[in-house]
Amino acid sequence: MSSQVTLSLNSAFRVAPVRRRTFGAFVEHLGRCVYTGIHEPDHPSADEHGFRTDVLELTRELGVSSVRYPGGNFVSGYRWEDGVGPVDQRPVRHDLAWHSSDPNTVGLDEFMTWAKKAEVEPMYAVNLGTRGVQEALDVLEYANAPAGTHLSDQRVANTGAEQPHGIRMWCLGNEMDGPWQIGHKTAEEYARVATEAARAMRMEDPDLELIVCGSSSSAMPTFGAWENTVLTEAYDFVDMVSAHAYYSEKDDDQASFLASADDMDHFIDAVVATADHVRAKLKREKRIMISFDEWNVWYQHRAESRPPSGDDWPVAPVLLEDIYSAQDAVVFGNLLISLLRHSDRVASASLAQLVNVIAPIMTEPGGRAWKQTTFHPFALTSRHAKGEVLQVNIDAPRFENQRFGSSSSADAVATWDDESGDLALFVVNRDASGSLSLGVDLAAGGFGELELVEALTLHHEDPYAANSADAPDTVAPQVNDTVVVEDGRLRGELPAISWSVLRLRRTAA
Amino acid sequence: MSSQVTLSLNSAFRVAPVRRRTFGAFVEHLGRCVYTGIHEPDHPSADEHGFRTDVLELTRELGVSSVRYPGGNFVSGYRWEDGVGPVDQRPVRHDLAWHSSDPNTVGLDEFMTWAKKAEVEPMYAVNLGTRGVQEALDVLEYANAPAGTHLSDQRVANTGAEQPHGIRMWCLGNEMDGPWQIGHKTAEEYARVATEAARAMRMEDPDLELIVCGSSSSAMPTFGAWENTVLTEAYDFVDMVSAHAYYSEKDDDQASFLASADDMDHFIDAVVATADHVRAKLKREKRIMISFDEWNVWYQHRAESRPPSGDDWPVAPVLLEDIYSAQDAVVFGNLLISLLRHSDRVASASLAQLVNVIAPIMTEPGGRAWKQTTFHPFALTSRHAKGEVLQVNIDAPRFENQRFGSSSSADAVATWDDESGDLALFVVNRDASGSLSLGVDLAAGGFGELELVEALTLHHEDPYAANSADAPDTVAPQVNDTVVVEDGRLRGELPAISWSVLRLRRTAA
Amino acid sequence: MSSQVTLSLNSAFRVAPVRRRTFGAFVEHLGRCVYTGIHEPDHPSADEHGFRTDVLELTRELGVSSVRYPGGNFVSGYRWEDGVGPVDQRPVRHDLAWHSSDPNTVGLDEFMTWAKKAEVEPMYAVNLGTRGVQEALDVLEYANAPAGTHLSDQRVANTGAEQPHGIRMWCLGNEMDGPWQIGHKTAEEYARVATEAARAMRMEDPDLELIVCGSSSSAMPTFGAWENTVLTEAYDFVDMVSAHAYYSEKDDDQASFLASADDMDHFIDAVVATADHVRAKLKREKRIMISFDEWNVWYQHRAESRPPSGDDWPVAPVLLEDIYSAQDAVVFGNLLISLLRHSDRVASASLAQLVNVIAPIMTEPGGRAWKQTTFHPFALTSRHAKGEVLQVNIDAPRFENQRFGSSSSADAVATWDDESGDLALFVVNRDASGSLSLGVDLAAGGFGELELVEALTLHHEDPYAANSADAPDTVAPQVNDTVVVEDGRLRGELPAISWSVLRLRRTAA
Repeated sequence: MSSQVTLSLNSAFRVAPVRRRTFGAFVEHLGRCVYTGIHEPDHPSADEHGFRTDVLELTRELGVSSVRYPGGNFVSGYRWEDGVGPVDQRPVRHDLAWHSSDPNTVGLDEFMTWAKKAEVEPMYAVNLGTRGVQEALDVLEYANAPAGTHLSDQRVANTGAEQPHGIRMWCLGNEMDGPWQIGHKTAEEYARVATEAARAMRMEDPDLELIVCGSSSSAMPTFGAWENTVLTEAYDFVDMVSAHAYYSEKDDDQASFLASADDMDHFIDAVVATADHVRAKLKREKRIMISFDEWNVWYQHRAESRPPSGDDWPVAPVLLEDIYSAQDAVVFGNLLISLLRHSDRVASASLAQLVNVIAPIMTEPGGRAWKQTTFHPFALTSRHAKGEVLQVNIDAPRFENQRFGSSSSADAVATWDDESGDLALFVVNRDASGSLSLGVDLAAGGFGELELVEALTLHHEDPYAANSADAPDTVAPQVNDTVVVEDGRLRGELPAISWSVLRLRRTAA
Repeated sequence: MSSQVTLSLNSAFRVAPVRRRTFGAFVEHLGRCVYTGIHEPDHPSADEHGFRTDVLELTRELGVSSVRYPGGNFVSGYRWEDGVGPVDQRPVRHDLAWHSSDPNTVGLDEFMTWAKKAEVEPMYAVNLGTRGVQEALDVLEYANAPAGTHLSDQRVANTGAEQPHGIRMWCLGNEMDGPWQIGHKTAEEYARVATEAARAMRMEDPDLELIVCGSSSSAMPTFGAWENTVLTEAYDFVDMVSAHAYYSEKDDDQASFLASADDMDHFIDAVVATADHVRAKLKREKRIMISFDEWNVWYQHRAESRPPSGDDWPVAPVLLEDIYSAQDAVVFGNLLISLLRHSDRVASASLAQLVNVIAPIMTEPGGRAWKQTTFHPFALTSRHAKGEVLQVNIDAPRFENQRFGSSSSADAVATWDDESGDLALFVVNRDASGSLSLGVDLAAGGFGELELVEALTLHHEDPYAANSADAPDTVAPQVNDTVVVEDGRLRGELPAISWSVLRLRRTAA
Repeated sequence: MSSQVTLSLNSAFRVAPVRRRTFGAFVEHLGRCVYTGIHEPDHPSADEHGFRTDVLELTRELGVSSVRYPGGNFVSGYRWEDGVGPVDQRPVRHDLAWHSSDPNTVGLDEFMTWAKKAEVEPMYAVNLGTRGVQEALDVLEYANAPAGTHLSDQRVANTGAEQPHGIRMWCLGNEMDGPWQIGHKTAEEYARVATEAARAMRMEDPDLELIVCGSSSSAMPTFGAWENTVLTEAYDFVDMVSAHAYYSEKDDDQASFLASADDMDHFIDAVVATADHVRAKLKREKRIMISFDEWNVWYQHRAESRPPSGDDWPVAPVLLEDIYSAQDAVVFGNLLISLLRHSDRVASASLAQLVNVIAPIMTEPGGRAWKQTTFHPFALTSRHAKGEVLQVNIDAPRFENQRFGSSSSADAVATWDDESGDLALFVVNRDASGSLSLGVDLAAGGFGELELVEALTLHHEDPYAANSADAPDTVAPQVNDTVVVEDGRLRGELPAISWSVLRLRRTAA
């Protein structure tokens, strides 16, 4: 007999509106994310710009709202001007971050063309590793200034269009707290350069949304102190502080891995506390939001994550091409639940990354594109999370694990769209020991009368089962016909290690 | 009956020689100061270089000794090389400081041509906002190095002349203490970059006169501490520290405005104290002088001072075109009195600015040039202040005002030229409540026998009366026929809110 | 009767292997070191690259192992790209460090061609004065990256060869602790920029040998504290810390000058202590070695050391062309003894400099090349120091001197080559008061049976005698026929102020 999980929710108890930007992703010049990922001129599906239309279709199906570009660690050694102008005159550069060569075939203008086709909003990171204020101003002017200046006229000449790119979100460097970063900085150093870059960029355009680097993980030795120092200096000039987190099963500790979202919850709570501490200290009205602009499951210690070395500086090597299991997808779906649950403070998020590199979409050079297991929870959450995020009280058994002590067997978030009457529940059973019997009392929730529209569950009897180009549907959501709505109560079974979306719709008020 | 003011002076009690550089001005790439100000190739009066000869004439008549260039806030985002070489190849840039576009038609070489025609000494500011030591060295080499190097040969090619520009005075950035500044710096940061720029620039030419940034106003929260930090680091490498001050009538507080020179006095005294404190601390012989390189009346909160915004980046917009009243000219004249009085430590000063932008000279694009009220005290002081500045004791009634508590109704300075026997008194009645009866005992002053040469008073019954292109002489100095010299005593009436120059000459020793 | 000196040594008591890099030298763009020194296309002996083959021959004869390039103070204002590409397009620059003009005829590629011909290893210094991380990465990529990148392809185009230069040793700037340095830095500032440059350079090539700046002399006010701060920050990223020292006879204090090597000993000991202190503090395994990359006798206060001034910016002026005496050569030989003695921690050294500028090799423009007195101890030590450096116990009388109190009259080091059975003793009599009777008991040293191969002594009855182009052999080593080996004991006379090499060889085990 399976354990009982009871969820309570009420249309009046809201967190915040669902933000489309929660469903952002990330395209870095890393491995095969750009070259043979989004861009492959020789591919049968390539459009006139060299972009793979199969990947574009999958990107749209994935429901990606915004895409961060061009890095990542890559950006801290990047010269944006290498990637604009006639392609045949662009320099080949060593990318020190990933020990690769970059032909610079794709740059800012190409990315913007792609973003338009992919129907995503761009988020652009400037290089504060080897560069500073002037270069940040230059790329901003190139991208966004109306025609008539030296750099904006170059853009017009290069793109053949008057229209500025109009990029709203700008990252002030990448993971500058990380000792692996080119031009790594102390919190004090970074606080100053980020503030001065932001001050000057706002003189070009006061309405930009600027993201200052927070911590590269909650395990950084400077975590917390970094945010405090950086925000104390930069508070008035930035809108968001970034957070990055990656999770994986290590040392066969499955239980801790399944509870990964607990870390993301704590991480977000800690950054919120720090930001609000600075707010109180500085006596400011504005609240700083979080841009969770790198998150995923990543098997960082696997061989595929290790860059080439020595005199081998390949273009677009196979790198970080993690293959995700059913279990990975469940944890992944749970991370999205955590992000959604914090929609009051997480204003933007970027799944790292979009294609090939720890990605939901995989491609073969010259060949097929296919969906990893993680594709599904992302696509379904992006499609069905609408309206307002609701508070959800979870009454569930707990399971022991090494990292967090004990964790709730179930985790969930719900969204409710007043207008259309759509209620969506995203629920995970993250306990490997058995299925859970879910119960949700909807009658007193102020939703009116609800009927079940669809119940899909992602689960595989082998939690390590994965998809491949040859068997792309090995792991995919299935209709969960145990789920029913009766007498204002939803019931159903959630198999061990599963992610589900349960969709209901108001039939009467 | 008017109150009595008695001045005492003695040819033996001297402050310092009159310094010509006290009568400097300022040309910034801001609004219409450069374009349609000093430079307007299509203007009927334009010379072969495109410079308005009407403005040149007025500049010479104004008696300007030196001109600071090219900014101001502008310089902190400026690339000097944008402004040299073939004009049609120069880039159009956004000037972030004033939200304008700069076609770079005028640059260093054009300015030097203009300066020669205007008979002024150049004072050049380097960009320490977005740039550093290397670029300061480059522009110095371009400007001053003898032909034969890469950059000096470019100058020769661009100007067609072998002769270096020979610029002696160099400002190490502009207002780096101000949070509005591109590349704003902490005192510690600025102290370091200014010191390293100065160290390296002196390796190119040890005889340069280098001006380090002091405070942007005496009201800056870092005032005093900034100078202390900066001079402690840079002492051996710089000659002057800058001071900037602007005054205006605010909240209808006329009395405080009329006493504005009290702030300038305190400001100078405080900077002197700080500089001499550092001198004592470091055990140095040299004294640091003050370059008061921005000063004026400026109605900073009027709409005209607000730069454009959004996608509007005009070339040479109407900006900061304050129209000055008779009262403004009296305060202005009083500020000059304050500067002269401190000639022992104020080694240079720059009226901000010269044309159109809070300026004594106004122009119409394509049309007339005319004199604001402030033109007159500047021109008369520059023309008649000669020889030595004398100490003046002032015995005058005081008037209450909010800013300073109480202030002297009269203020004055005198200059005495031993050789020619010229004595000049510059006197203001800055009490709005009535005229003052001036008395000066000259008999015991060691001047010999003196006769009155000229007594001019700037005053208008409406203190808010101003000049315009159509009525350029509404406010102008008039002969003051109440002034007489009898029995070695000068007497005369100073109307309420008036500025006067009283000129005497020795007839016998 | 001369005093007795007894040396004890034993083949089992070893310091470290002799390191070839101890015999490095230095070529700076300074005076006539490069132009009319190593490079003079119009010289009769010039090869097809314009290099003087007479100087090349002397360099090889000198036994130079590695050469530091291109500075020195010069490098802190140097732009490496000025010195590559078509020679006729290279810019003429002011070298602020030495107030000279540099036509940039010789640059990185030319130097590498020369180094190959001179059979020396290159050691390249990057500019951390006016430049930073990016430019260090660029020159590293230009020099060392395999063909295929923008910069490495430029190298291929410029040199006509695919092969990277493969420079292993890189200096992170030069003497950044010295207030004379362009872009002088505090220890904290330098620690950060050097660390970030090193971090990034290691991403290009983890196997580089990186040298961080230590102190410019043991008399710097920051000596010790500088090394502590810099190594604490940079420890994991660097291999060596530099040390620089110059000595000369000052104020007729001959005795202190003769004891100069005592300072070098203390200097090295102090840097070792500091490095090992940091090692303990940081709990690291690795030991930081010393690169003693500037050392020599230098009469720094002589007129020849003063650079030109004013508008005089000559190319290759006569500068620092010190003429060395016999006494200078003895002190010089003693400095080499000190370096060799510390082979456990001195991993590299560079005699400053190679040609004309405080140099063992002198040239006439268009004419002869000749050997200074210092040529000889360097050449002989480089040739005969082989195998292992042995500990030497010295029992000698002491002489008083102002700088060190009292110093040993004799100093010595020995090297022993197990395989060939070569034993070399380098000994100085540095007491001006008289000759010393040397005795060395070899019987118990574990060397087997030894015979004398050669005994050479550098000495002149006039310690101030020097060589010249006309009399290049005035001071040169002579066979010392007082030296004998009898009954396992070496005996001989060392004249006052003399340097000797005593070579023995095993005849039987």
